Amino acid sequence: MSERALLDQLIDALRCLPGVGPKSAQRIAFHLLERDREGGARLARVMAEAMTRIGHCDRCRTLTERERCAICADPHRDAGLLCVVEQPSEVVAIEQATDFGGRYFVLGGRLSPLDGIGPAELGLDRLEALLAEGVVRELVLAISPTVEGGATAQFVAELATVQGVAVTRIAQGVPLGGDLDALDGGTLALALAGRRAF
Amino acid sequence: MSERALLDQLIDALRCLPGVGPKSAQRIAFHLLERDREGGARLARVMAEAMTRIGHCDRCRTLTERERCAICADPHRDAGLLCVVEQPSEVVAIEQATDFGGRYFVLGGRLSPLDGIGPAELGLDRLEALLAEGVVRELVLAISPTVEGGATAQFVAELATVQGVAVTRIAQGVPLGGDLDALDGGTLALALAGRRAF
Ligand SMILES: [Zn+2]
Ligand SMILES: [Zn+2]
Repeated sequence: MSERALLDQLIDALRCLPGVGPKSAQRIAFHLLERDREGGARLARVMAEAMTRIGHCDRCRTLTERERCAICADPHRDAGLLCVVEQPSEVVAIEQATDFGGRYFVLGGRLSPLDGIGPAELGLDRLEALLAEGVVRELVLAISPTVEGGATAQFVAELATVQGVAVTRIAQGVPLGGDLDALDGGTLALALAGRRAF
Repeated sequence: MSERALLDQLIDALRCLPGVGPKSAQRIAFHLLERDREGGARLARVMAEAMTRIGHCDRCRTLTERERCAICADPHRDAGLLCVVEQPSEVVAIEQATDFGGRYFVLGGRLSPLDGIGPAELGLDRLEALLAEGVVRELVLAISPTVEGGATAQFVAELATVQGVAVTRIAQGVPLGGDLDALDGGTLALALAGRRAF
């Protein structure tokens, strides 16, 4: 009897979802319990598995439960075209909105020396090794044009140039400081198609 | 390789949450995976347990994982006062907003013969047995004043009257701070009809 009611625990745990306050946590809990227990049970199962099993692709650092993600493992992708993004969500956004047929490299952030985020934290040693394989001929920068994003893009571009890899970046039209995955697909597709020499 | 990526399964499973479309499912999945795996793992654990273990209180039919809910088990509640609601969420709303110190009975819906929802489906036999114990002296109706809600309230009221239990119902009218022109017509009509001396 001293343990908290399971319903209260559920309402509480739901607050880890972004944008979910006490009121909507309650609404969600009652919805699942009264109208969709099967969906809730399935979500619980998949979520438990995802939280423990999903890691990062060995090659491009995007999220995957395999050693190598589906895109890196796909022999039909153009291995000569490499798009560098900050976050895994941006890979999904580009895949859904464009017909980009190359591969990706996910930095996982931006250079930020004050926060202890240097080249190693962004996997730039791995990117360098990848470029040194000599297969990539064009590196497409898809990094937000903020101050830190700009420094990061500059760093990546130099890395590629040293290896003799052409560097382009997706066209302006991306709003300043805007998150790529919050953009509408059309804008994103145009920006990618209009990429220029960096 | 033929199985769907775990990330896609997670995004898909999140769609069981009310009001969550493909875009927000994606946003939630990336948020949990990149920023709050611990919260996600805890939610998965509690949700799995809640979906299988939470049932209905033996006495009042509200949601609980115990035989008898915390309110029914609390000896300090006024057993003479019984509030009849349609849904478990309404018990929570009344508990949070008022100092009602009695107990509840949850119908779980409204009488709707065409949908096969009769007195048995709403547990009215159990309510009758409860009233026959002779402890309840006032039954408070907190049922939406719709056509079906009205018929249900009428049915419950007759059940109580036969047992010699007084029947009241929560006041209907304009909510505090509510704009008259944003209110539905039915509420406005009831508020006007129920006007009192000023
Ligand atoms: Zn990969
Ligand atoms: Zn109860």
